[in-house]
Amino acid sequence: MAGSGKLISGKEVAQHNSRESCWIIVHGKVYDVTDFLDDHPGGSRIILKYAGKDATAEYDPIHPPDAIKTHLPPEKHLGDVDPGTVLKVEVEVTDQEKERLERIANRPPLSEILNLHDFEAIARVVMPEKAWAYYSSAADDEITNRENHAAYHRLWWRPRILRDVTNVEWSTTILGHPSKMPLYITATALGKLGHPDGELNLTKAAAKHGVIQMIPTLASCAFDELVDAAQPGQVQFLQLYVNKDRSITKKFVQHAEKRGIKALFITVDAPQLGRREKDMRQKFEAEDPAEVTGNNQEDKVDRSQGAARAISSFIDPGLDWKDIPWFQSITKMPLILKGVQCWEDTLQAYDMGLAGVVLSNHGGRQLDFSRSGIEILVEVVRELGARRGLKFPNDKFQLFVDGGVRRANDVLKAIALGATAVGVGRPFLYAFSSYGPEGVDHALQILHDEFEMNMRLLGARTLKEVVPEMVDASSLQSHIVAVPGDRLYDSNYESMQHARLREVKSKM
Amino acid sequence: MAGSGKLISGKEVAQHNSRESCWIIVHGKVYDVTDFLDDHPGGSRIILKYAGKDATAEYDPIHPPDAIKTHLPPEKHLGDVDPGTVLKVEVEVTDQEKERLERIANRPPLSEILNLHDFEAIARVVMPEKAWAYYSSAADDEITNRENHAAYHRLWWRPRILRDVTNVEWSTTILGHPSKMPLYITATALGKLGHPDGELNLTKAAAKHGVIQMIPTLASCAFDELVDAAQPGQVQFLQLYVNKDRSITKKFVQHAEKRGIKALFITVDAPQLGRREKDMRQKFEAEDPAEVTGNNQEDKVDRSQGAARAISSFIDPGLDWKDIPWFQSITKMPLILKGVQCWEDTLQAYDMGLAGVVLSNHGGRQLDFSRSGIEILVEVVRELGARRGLKFPNDKFQLFVDGGVRRANDVLKAIALGATAVGVGRPFLYAFSSYGPEGVDHALQILHDEFEMNMRLLGARTLKEVVPEMVDASSLQSHIVAVPGDRLYDSNYESMQHARLREVKSKM
Amino acid sequence: MAGSGKLISGKEVAQHNSRESCWIIVHGKVYDVTDFLDDHPGGSRIILKYAGKDATAEYDPIHPPDAIKTHLPPEKHLGDVDPGTVLKVEVEVTDQEKERLERIANRPPLSEILNLHDFEAIARVVMPEKAWAYYSSAADDEITNRENHAAYHRLWWRPRILRDVTNVEWSTTILGHPSKMPLYITATALGKLGHPDGELNLTKAAAKHGVIQMIPTLASCAFDELVDAAQPGQVQFLQLYVNKDRSITKKFVQHAEKRGIKALFITVDAPQLGRREKDMRQKFEAEDPAEVTGNNQEDKVDRSQGAARAISSFIDPGLDWKDIPWFQSITKMPLILKGVQCWEDTLQAYDMGLAGVVLSNHGGRQLDFSRSGIEILVEVVRELGARRGLKFPNDKFQLFVDGGVRRANDVLKAIALGATAVGVGRPFLYAFSSYGPEGVDHALQILHDEFEMNMRLLGARTLKEVVPEMVDASSLQSHIVAVPGDRLYDSNYESMQHARLREVKSKM
Amino acid sequence: MAGSGKLISGKEVAQHNSRESCWIIVHGKVYDVTDFLDDHPGGSRIILKYAGKDATAEYDPIHPPDAIKTHLPPEKHLGDVDPGTVLKVEVEVTDQEKERLERIANRPPLSEILNLHDFEAIARVVMPEKAWAYYSSAADDEITNRENHAAYHRLWWRPRILRDVTNVEWSTTILGHPSKMPLYITATALGKLGHPDGELNLTKAAAKHGVIQMIPTLASCAFDELVDAAQPGQVQFLQLYVNKDRSITKKFVQHAEKRGIKALFITVDAPQLGRREKDMRQKFEAEDPAEVTGNNQEDKVDRSQGAARAISSFIDPGLDWKDIPWFQSITKMPLILKGVQCWEDTLQAYDMGLAGVVLSNHGGRQLDFSRSGIEILVEVVRELGARRGLKFPNDKFQLFVDGGVRRANDVLKAIALGATAVGVGRPFLYAFSSYGPEGVDHALQILHDEFEMNMRLLGARTLKEVVPEMVDASSLQSHIVAVPGDRLYDSNYESMQHARLREVKSKM
Repeated sequence: MAGSGKLISGKEVAQHNSRESCWIIVHGKVYDVTDFLDDHPGGSRIILKYAGKDATAEYDPIHPPDAIKTHLPPEKHLGDVDPGTVLKVEVEVTDQEKERLERIANRPPLSEILNLHDFEAIARVVMPEKAWAYYSSAADDEITNRENHAAYHRLWWRPRILRDVTNVEWSTTILGHPSKMPLYITATALGKLGHPDGELNLTKAAAKHGVIQMIPTLASCAFDELVDAAQPGQVQFLQLYVNKDRSITKKFVQHAEKRGIKALFITVDAPQLGRREKDMRQKFEAEDPAEVTGNNQEDKVDRSQGAARAISSFIDPGLDWKDIPWFQSITKMPLILKGVQCWEDTLQAYDMGLAGVVLSNHGGRQLDFSRSGIEILVEVVRELGARRGLKFPNDKFQLFVDGGVRRANDVLKAIALGATAVGVGRPFLYAFSSYGPEGVDHALQILHDEFEMNMRLLGARTLKEVVPEMVDASSLQSHIVAVPGDRLYDSNYESMQHARLREVKSKM
Repeated sequence: MAGSGKLISGKEVAQHNSRESCWIIVHGKVYDVTDFLDDHPGGSRIILKYAGKDATAEYDPIHPPDAIKTHLPPEKHLGDVDPGTVLKVEVEVTDQEKERLERIANRPPLSEILNLHDFEAIARVVMPEKAWAYYSSAADDEITNRENHAAYHRLWWRPRILRDVTNVEWSTTILGHPSKMPLYITATALGKLGHPDGELNLTKAAAKHGVIQMIPTLASCAFDELVDAAQPGQVQFLQLYVNKDRSITKKFVQHAEKRGIKALFITVDAPQLGRREKDMRQKFEAEDPAEVTGNNQEDKVDRSQGAARAISSFIDPGLDWKDIPWFQSITKMPLILKGVQCWEDTLQAYDMGLAGVVLSNHGGRQLDFSRSGIEILVEVVRELGARRGLKFPNDKFQLFVDGGVRRANDVLKAIALGATAVGVGRPFLYAFSSYGPEGVDHALQILHDEFEMNMRLLGARTLKEVVPEMVDASSLQSHIVAVPGDRLYDSNYESMQHARLREVKSKM
Repeated sequence: MAGSGKLISGKEVAQHNSRESCWIIVHGKVYDVTDFLDDHPGGSRIILKYAGKDATAEYDPIHPPDAIKTHLPPEKHLGDVDPGTVLKVEVEVTDQEKERLERIANRPPLSEILNLHDFEAIARVVMPEKAWAYYSSAADDEITNRENHAAYHRLWWRPRILRDVTNVEWSTTILGHPSKMPLYITATALGKLGHPDGELNLTKAAAKHGVIQMIPTLASCAFDELVDAAQPGQVQFLQLYVNKDRSITKKFVQHAEKRGIKALFITVDAPQLGRREKDMRQKFEAEDPAEVTGNNQEDKVDRSQGAARAISSFIDPGLDWKDIPWFQSITKMPLILKGVQCWEDTLQAYDMGLAGVVLSNHGGRQLDFSRSGIEILVEVVRELGARRGLKFPNDKFQLFVDGGVRRANDVLKAIALGATAVGVGRPFLYAFSSYGPEGVDHALQILHDEFEMNMRLLGARTLKEVVPEMVDASSLQSHIVAVPGDRLYDSNYESMQHARLREVKSKM
Repeated sequence: MAGSGKLISGKEVAQHNSRESCWIIVHGKVYDVTDFLDDHPGGSRIILKYAGKDATAEYDPIHPPDAIKTHLPPEKHLGDVDPGTVLKVEVEVTDQEKERLERIANRPPLSEILNLHDFEAIARVVMPEKAWAYYSSAADDEITNRENHAAYHRLWWRPRILRDVTNVEWSTTILGHPSKMPLYITATALGKLGHPDGELNLTKAAAKHGVIQMIPTLASCAFDELVDAAQPGQVQFLQLYVNKDRSITKKFVQHAEKRGIKALFITVDAPQLGRREKDMRQKFEAEDPAEVTGNNQEDKVDRSQGAARAISSFIDPGLDWKDIPWFQSITKMPLILKGVQCWEDTLQAYDMGLAGVVLSNHGGRQLDFSRSGIEILVEVVRELGARRGLKFPNDKFQLFVDGGVRRANDVLKAIALGATAVGVGRPFLYAFSSYGPEGVDHALQILHDEFEMNMRLLGARTLKEVVPEMVDASSLQSHIVAVPGDRLYDSNYESMQHARLREVKSKM
């Protein structure tokens, strides 16, 4: 019925409003998404709500700009809609959403946000549940996710005194580029889930505070949009998921280099995306309950992972060490492997002439019971020291870690142990999800303040003075699980009690 | 009054409806159970409810087919009932049971079951309390029961990257027979407590997913029924409790071999059943409270263990290493000891020419403070390596572990450390108890999915690439109990608080 | 007014009914307790309630028979009361007490008591608060008290299989005397607080079950009463607090030896009683609130410890190694030091020819952060082995431990590590406090059952086969306190959730 | 309008009652605090409440005597007010404050305060929230704050027996001066926040109990007032924050020496004050909500730290080892560095001829994840023993620790490990905040009682007998964080339950 050249009337679109035939309008284009319903990461229900209607307002904040074009075969691109004929969709605001909006209105002023934890606490209550689930979830039982943070708690300081710390300085050089702090904003996907400006929030704040942003392959904003938004001289890195079709990757990498990207971080820990069950459960909420009941006994394991798989289906599980020379042949950008998890692979990266590695488990989102980056750092420094005589931090071959960082105190432990810089991801997502661009700005300011204080209290004037001897890492590798509790004994034990106020006492 | 040749009238049976004289009908046969009342594992109350009546409907789901015949002396088998004369028993559905049925109706669809934990969560609320208590209970304070799971959390991965994991494969060979996964369904008793089809649920799903089922001696289904249900070529093993009367054991073993059973797992950790106090407590609920009150000050310790003892009273506590040659003389099936708990006994098993051992503590149901199979595995591999030059996994002498497994991630740790395969028990019970045969099917599918993902993320194409170097086991043997808390200090400590929403704040 | 020869009239006594002059009648004798009010362990309030009246009924259950005679100077013993003139005291039953009596009526039958924990759970709710506080309290923050139990959880079994355990035997010989179990009932004070028959309950049950009772110096029952109650051939030991006046001690010891006591356990860990703050707090409850208010700003630290100090004021803090030869000169009974806490003192005990030591911290009631007996046992066995070539268990020099034991499983760990036997105290107090003599009987029967089961499951036919190799004690000496939790991170972390029932879900 | 010579009328003052122009009267003097509003540690709101009025009553309890003079430039000191013209401020008592006053009235009598924890429990409920926040708060996540206490729980006693402990003695000599206990009252700021007499409470109690008080630079009471209050012969030390203007420091130090101060403790761990977020959050409560809303999106990070910074802005972050000889040149008092955190700096202090160091992390208020003083003590004793042949405790070079102490038991562990004495701070603040001078008196009496008991139970007649062999410190350096819990497994696990009362059971 609909040709590709002439305008399609809103009335015609409106007739395709069912599971059997489902058309939607996005940015003035009409798409037939009937066959896509079951593959939609966000569930079919949300699409069916807009069947036959203009879905732009709903679509925009949560999709990469060209998602629909990319995921839908060309024959489903039906053409342009006749603008005057489209009925306006009245967005019904649920009670749940009203409560959320009220919570947004009641956010505390930014001045009351004292640390990165605070952003997370506010984001948790003001973000849409779906977005919160996507950002906060991790693999399997989320053991590694939490271990990432916990590992820093097994490292203790040995600060020095009586050094003139009137002037302290925590700037550094990352892959040859200046950074005002020994950290960078690492790549995280789908920024618009949390805020309409998505990753642009990060670009702006990075510029203001002199830190480097790593642009993600799966950004919600277009790559060029993020590069265009950079200030003159602002350094940006690129995180790369390697496509099964290497020509696409080649084109993307060379385009990035041309646009001035300074380093390429190739993700190597995601040949398949991990099971993020919180995210998967969230999805059921969005399903049409009628449908779900109907399919009650049918096995849907695969489908429940649709979202993550849809986004990531292009990623090549066949990526191999043999591909490294090819990367070296298509770009002059320094190459860094992101997601290395043992000294053996780090050594190989070094021997193949790469510029460094990120010791990372993908924020706990891939293999559960992977060790934390900070723990791996210690074995890497030891073994590459013993086998290749390297000292870290090292300009020629740089070590990065990410995962679990919440304070400058954490970052400095990694620096002391040999990292060049630390990647920080989720905290900045929470910052813009709760307060927009000012949130990221404030988050970076908090970190600057924390660095200043910590450097003084450590007795270190520059990062060079943050040395291994300052950290007691002897408990780092212990992965203790306490013996299961004796529930009968424990419930018999009557806890000790304080002296109490008289009145209180008489009431008890 | 009742002869063994002629039919007994329902009316006559109905007169024996008291503790003094109690007859019941099961599958058309009349039994005098008066003297058995106090020995009944499920308590006397439930029998007395059917005194003088047809108990078949109640009996069937929770007894091995010939239990009543076996446990009651022949003179108590009174003969056949006259079918037309039997009054139908109206089953009264209690409020508690109605609520349970409602919970069953409200089970989430299988598609929402994302992992093996989920089955347990649903089973817990939809199973009869008695069945749940029997399956979930363990010995004494259930420390070992929980330690079995906890031990896996002390093992951490060292995954490898940049290996082409487009195709990954997690099938293996167990005692010479192919298995699609490095696990088998281990033997567990009384399957009909959880589902009317009992162990048949496992036989079917095992066939579909290419895994091996170990048939238990104490199955609710008859042994031949389970063998008959197997698909052509489907491999089954047999778990054996050795009878004090060796001729019975010999007959059973040789029958099994004839029926095509491929290996014999002799249980060696149960010369006496452990105290499973949750199960014992459950039993009091089923007692007639009037009776219990009457016996208030009488010592009933022994009686409270009736159920387990009744089932297991035939098991021989005198089983000895000296019996092994006899087993070797009566069967050609490979012999495996199930329930070995130290390297010394493993070495002896090897030296006596057995085919392997299961390092196991019987799911924590026997001796509390036994160590987990996965912990024992490490010492066994080390010592048998040092003393006999063996390498594991080893085709000639295979090591298995069981207990505490919930994810493919756990299984792969055991494989990396030298196990040939891992036994999984309770999770499959919970799967069919909550969703019947589709539950087990779905559970195995989840495991397949998890194996695929984990193999990719480990960088292992086959199980041969899942090597000891991939696991950090340095914390495995620590059995830490934290110093008891300082309750006064802790209750004085005022916890830190996040920034909070204004409204929330004003309300507090 | 009151002469020592003639009868005192109840009327005259009744006039001394105030804090200024307070007389009471006990067992027909009149005492002037005016000056004793502030020293009374149970507080002054309870005495003032009986000022001028007959206090026998209240006095009897909670005092050693001759307590009042011993603690009150002779001139305060006013003489006999004229029986016919005494007014009967109507005991007012408080609501709180009524509730307690109702709880007693609702105790579960003994058959539902499955382990020693259960006695404690029932005792806690049916005992008078004061008695519970005295029995259950321990020193300072009660860290050692709980550590005593926790230490056993750091010991894990390495059981053996395929040994004929048809017949297992857990009897032993303690200091040359047979015991049906490798444990003894250790000395604990003030048994009548929990039950009117006090320690007699223990004497009877010990006879029935073939275990040895250690009679405490501070028994509620008279020493001779407990010896008289023994069956012919029943073995009893004596625990001794050494008096500042050695002649009293000499008389007591020699009397005990003459009465057939088989061994003397000299307490060496109580030169001063520990601060048992739960017990101290309990006392405030019993105070007259009016008085307390009046003394608001007055320092009463000493007085609050009155109870413990009053009982124990005769104990000699000057006891010294130099006294040992004197003990050896006054008795032929084997001498054992009770409360030794390191190998050095154990070695000295051995070198001085003593018969053994009890490695004990007095149930956690003395010095907090003392180590558990079971932990000390390991160092003692190691050092006395290295320095004197001793092997344990050792008939010539026996090691005992006590504290924290709740199951036969615990006891056998101590036996495996070298103890001859283990002392059990509080559990038996809880047993008779909740169920009288049948309680202790049942408790011992439970232990017998547990021993039988554990011996079989360990693969040990006799205690000689319970050897050190059966226990993994490598974690025993770790005293771990986890790093304080990150409250902000933890409260941000959203816990994982299971699949849930539909209905439940819709309600949340 | 206001000259410096003549009296200012209350009426004129009253006109300056707004944020634009804000005058207040303190002790009869008029001050223009308009420009100071935003810098006020306690927030602007509280000042604006007194704008144009007499603020003396509010000012007095919470400021050092000359705070306003010191912090306000001379030109803002407007002159004397005309007394008769000042309107009396009626203090409005809020409901919250009324409740607090009621809680104060309901304090338990001191006799019920059994340990130092009790003071904290009462102080927490009777102190103004602001004061509680200032005293109790610590840096960042307060990990180190709690670790200070927890570290003592990793140390376990090996007490000795059979030593005549009739007479025990816990007095010692600190820097040549007698102390009745091996502890001193360490320096803490702003005592008047908790009690109108501030640090004077400590001076008096110290005299009575024979312990030494360390006077803080930031006392609420004037230095001379505290010295004047000392009894003849009472020893006092001085804690020093070094001023950027060394002439001020020199004057202060030399004045102190002249007034008889016996030792100078130079704080070296506070070149910048730590982030105490509880204290910072408290401040927001005191802000004018209208204002805060107005500034909603404005970055106020710096301002929120105003209080701490205002108090401490004079402290010199440039203090250096090079300054030590200068200190040695201006005073003969022994010099001790307060806040040393590793053996390297301790060694340097020794080599430079100082009298000792306090191993301290400032009560956890500076750098989070600093180790506890007691942990550092062990490495210091080991390294200075190995490198300089020193034995500790050592009269020539004394080691002190502070932080986390709540019982004499804790103190004695430090003594055993080589400390000369231990500093105790917060507990005494809580003591006078809840009970005034009698509180501190009682706290010291409790400690005396605890020392007596612990010495006896350790078998130590004097502190010399409290030796390293008495402490098992093998777990001290472990900083364990347990593996994050498996929430799904744990929530599935059904806890074991005790036997229960019948009635209770039927209700559940």
